Amino acid sequence: MMKYYFDLLSQPSRALWIFLKMTKVPAQFIKVDLGKAEHLTDKFKEINRFQKVPCIVDADGFKLSESVAIFRYITSLNDVPENWYPKDIKARALVDEYLEYQHNSVRLPCAMYFQTKWLIPRLSGNPIDEKKAAAYKKLMEQSLNNLENVWLESADRKFLASEEISFADILAACELEQPKMAWYDPFDGRPRLRSWYDRVRDATNPYYDEAHVVVKKVIEKNGKSKL
Amino acid sequence: MMKYYFDLLSQPSRALWIFLKMTKVPAQFIKVDLGKAEHLTDKFKEINRFQKVPCIVDADGFKLSESVAIFRYITSLNDVPENWYPKDIKARALVDEYLEYQHNSVRLPCAMYFQTKWLIPRLSGNPIDEKKAAAYKKLMEQSLNNLENVWLESADRKFLASEEISFADILAACELEQPKMAWYDPFDGRPRLRSWYDRVRDATNPYYDEAHVVVKKVIEKNGKSKL
Repeated sequence: MMKYYFDLLSQPSRALWIFLKMTKVPAQFIKVDLGKAEHLTDKFKEINRFQKVPCIVDADGFKLSESVAIFRYITSLNDVPENWYPKDIKARALVDEYLEYQHNSVRLPCAMYFQTKWLIPRLSGNPIDEKKAAAYKKLMEQSLNNLENVWLESADRKFLASEEISFADILAACELEQPKMAWYDPFDGRPRLRSWYDRVRDATNPYYDEAHVVVKKVIEKNGKSKL
Repeated sequence: MMKYYFDLLSQPSRALWIFLKMTKVPAQFIKVDLGKAEHLTDKFKEINRFQKVPCIVDADGFKLSESVAIFRYITSLNDVPENWYPKDIKARALVDEYLEYQHNSVRLPCAMYFQTKWLIPRLSGNPIDEKKAAAYKKLMEQSLNNLENVWLESADRKFLASEEISFADILAACELEQPKMAWYDPFDGRPRLRSWYDRVRDATNPYYDEAHVVVKKVIEKNGKSKL
């Protein structure tokens, strides 16, 4: 059976976790505790040469990292419902477009805003670098506005890249949880994005909420339980 | 015929340009002059809603952006030699792994180091932000060391993700041209990376050099013609 290495603190780990649970692709789930730096051990280097999660080791020993590459590998080998990654070439290309777009446009600023505002001050004991946080906030808001106005261009656009939910939607939703942990509501003033998020969560629950138990605790602790 | 919109100042534009020339996939090549801000016109917004290059409009009007998504779309529709994107699921997954890895690990710091050291001071008239440049340099050097020591882990590893040249190699080589324009030699102290680069260039010439005529002029003007 394929071994799936993850930590639910990692956004792409959560996205693949939800995808595996939704599709019931057989996998052994193995937690790698980032908080205990388990990904930095020599033992884990044998599992993933880049020492990051998520990653997989297939039954025959084949190793792969990068969430989007793992997603494609799994859909190539398993009979996964087509909505997650359409077989039609053009429909698939539009999902691919988001999967490539998100790396620098959505993932980077959301992750770095969270790290700058929340994670780094807690790990280092230093105050928040507000100048850096403001720069990432600006980039993040450009991307959130693009999600609201370009990807979800009209009210009848239900999902980011296709008529039905695809892996693009899970990946995006998981990234948007990061700023929520740093007192920023990505849905404030973005009604289409909020409705889209509710649709993604509804379509993937109970797994979506299960994957976000720890994230939700942080958000609640920050006194923003309504987000 | 498919229309390909590009500017050879853009690294992924060059990568797809070389790929299209190498594979002789029929395409109409349309230059979008970034220097004249042609990508920011309303007319171009009709072609690509994100107003970036590269992008395509296929013969039937289908629009697509994101170099890696365009690459996958083209290989799905055309009979392209298999080395560029293997059909074997595992071999393909390893090319995918690099195509996903590179966004934040290679492309981001190489592009931002070039912009911080060279482009932004020229456009703004302000001095180089050396602190920012140093931060990007650190990230860039981590990635270059990963290319040298992990991706090209042994002397008999000829290409990044497979035994033969793939699109991963073109994409990577084009990104490494950016720091060269900002007085940084990515191959200094990285002999495997230098040999790999020579192999990629040899395998894709005369198109590789044709795509880099302007880039080479900048490098030569900077007095680093040996790079």
